[in-house]
Amino acid sequence: MEISEIVNQMHEEGIESLLIFKPENITYLSGYWPTSTSILLLKDDPVLLVPKLDLKEAEEISALEVDELRSLPKLKKTLPVHLGVEPSLDIATYKKIGEEFKIQVTDLVERSRIIKSEGEVHNIQKAIEIAEKSFLEVEMRGSEDEAAARLEYIMRLNGSSKPAFNTIMASGRRSSFPHASTSPENIESPLVIDWGAVYNHYASDTSRTLVETEKEEEIFDIVLEAQEKAIKNIKPGVKASYIDKVARDIITDYGYGESFLHSTGHGVGLEVHEMPSLSSKEDKKLEAGMVITVEPGIYVEGEFGVRVEDMVLVGKRSRVLNNIDSRLSF
Amino acid sequence: MEISEIVNQMHEEGIESLLIFKPENITYLSGYWPTSTSILLLKDDPVLLVPKLDLKEAEEISALEVDELRSLPKLKKTLPVHLGVEPSLDIATYKKIGEEFKIQVTDLVERSRIIKSEGEVHNIQKAIEIAEKSFLEVEMRGSEDEAAARLEYIMRLNGSSKPAFNTIMASGRRSSFPHASTSPENIESPLVIDWGAVYNHYASDTSRTLVETEKEEEIFDIVLEAQEKAIKNIKPGVKASYIDKVARDIITDYGYGESFLHSTGHGVGLEVHEMPSLSSKEDKKLEAGMVITVEPGIYVEGEFGVRVEDMVLVGKRSRVLNNIDSRLSF
Repeated sequence: MEISEIVNQMHEEGIESLLIFKPENITYLSGYWPTSTSILLLKDDPVLLVPKLDLKEAEEISALEVDELRSLPKLKKTLPVHLGVEPSLDIATYKKIGEEFKIQVTDLVERSRIIKSEGEVHNIQKAIEIAEKSFLEVEMRGSEDEAAARLEYIMRLNGSSKPAFNTIMASGRRSSFPHASTSPENIESPLVIDWGAVYNHYASDTSRTLVETEKEEEIFDIVLEAQEKAIKNIKPGVKASYIDKVARDIITDYGYGESFLHSTGHGVGLEVHEMPSLSSKEDKKLEAGMVITVEPGIYVEGEFGVRVEDMVLVGKRSRVLNNIDSRLSF
Repeated sequence: MEISEIVNQMHEEGIESLLIFKPENITYLSGYWPTSTSILLLKDDPVLLVPKLDLKEAEEISALEVDELRSLPKLKKTLPVHLGVEPSLDIATYKKIGEEFKIQVTDLVERSRIIKSEGEVHNIQKAIEIAEKSFLEVEMRGSEDEAAARLEYIMRLNGSSKPAFNTIMASGRRSSFPHASTSPENIESPLVIDWGAVYNHYASDTSRTLVETEKEEEIFDIVLEAQEKAIKNIKPGVKASYIDKVARDIITDYGYGESFLHSTGHGVGLEVHEMPSLSSKEDKKLEAGMVITVEPGIYVEGEFGVRVEDMVLVGKRSRVLNNIDSRLSF
């Protein structure tokens, strides 16, 4: 969204100036990723305030005016009474701002970030390309730690600034933990890989599961069916919670409803997890320009887990942004 | 610090139960690193609350009792009136807790973490060993991106779970930005490398600068003199701000006071930056068992920068935990 539109909406919410601390929100509005505590003061003439040590670097990169961040007490003297802050602001800083202000908490910038511009979709697509290309270059052998290290290294060489999150490389019984990361144990079957690259600060998030036994294949087929049906239903105007229901109903029909331990997906952009959530509790409807994951999973307690995750750009003709096959072998 | 001591201090502060969200604080108290939003309810019989999808994994790892985290409204019904929260708690969650509680913000757990146990020092020492061993295996050639990728990869293979922070590999003019990360440009002189490993969730944080020209050598000598004098003054009872003054005075005497753009150091542990700060504003005194960085730097605007950073364990006989030479060449 254009910054002037966001400022207009801010004024409509009765906020004169919005204090922005969250690095992703600062990057969204200015193009500069803060490496120390910085504040973007959003108002008619927005200004990015950074500590002296980052001043030169920020001036080279920021699309907005940059000034030196002095102490909060000094800054407060320049602020209007009707002040906005982000939901993520820490309580210590919030209390320091003080009671002389009428402070309103708003997720205005996070909401603005839900619909991706062409440039943002390009960055996400590039992150996915790097992640997939790298994935195909890695042999899934040795320990989980080693394979994850190789994958992250190759992503870095292929242009990812860092892993989008701690790579999950969880095999055998460890695959039954949806959030297992990696272990020094040797890779066995099945193997869940959940990984992402970062390009121009935008993330990708994909999962694949390599299976071997008949039982693993059987669970895999159910998960893939749930994922494919869910993806088919993605279009503007549909409730995000409905996509979760489509996937969950299929898995439940096969008797594994209790083993689908998480929601079906989430938005991805500057953050790996952002709005909307594809969960039963989400009120939001899908809109053209959202980028979301679709990632049903079945985790058979004490045995193993399977998850398949792709990223989808919502549109009149929604488009899966991933290119690698869902069904891959060791 | 023992958990029972922390609970006693909490009661002394008039808090019946402390809601802990911060992953590092949860790890400190339970040994479990939460991968989804989790709450450690600190009280006489502490309990770690995690979402259903992480339940099995948390039960295997946590030293404290584990239970399923249900919704905040349900949890609230079980909470006492005198409730504590952390300074880092986000304002959205804080507001959801609601006005029926007497909420006190306390950094009790962060304060408990300042003095490291033997086990914690061991983890930090291991992280440093991994980081240094890996550093010596990397040839500093090619682009900054590539060299950083190799360093991070080798750290991972040597047992680091991830880079402790975005590796800084900044050469030539880019070294004049204290927080430059890496670029696709080829490495030139001087080269500032600021890197760290993570072992058992504990971080290391070290910097070296490789120099070539006479001017670079001259600046290097000043920075190293400042660092060595600062380290010599580290002992229990000395103000943290005094260590900053020692380093800053030397750099100022040589005429570069304005080019020393940051504070002299900070605590390191589960977080890369934690208490105390070695800055002019810090009131705290050094105590035995603290682990701090000492990292003066000079950043000649538009030209280049030099920083040397080691980690020191404060004690009657303070000990530099790093082993690699301060003066290294390409």
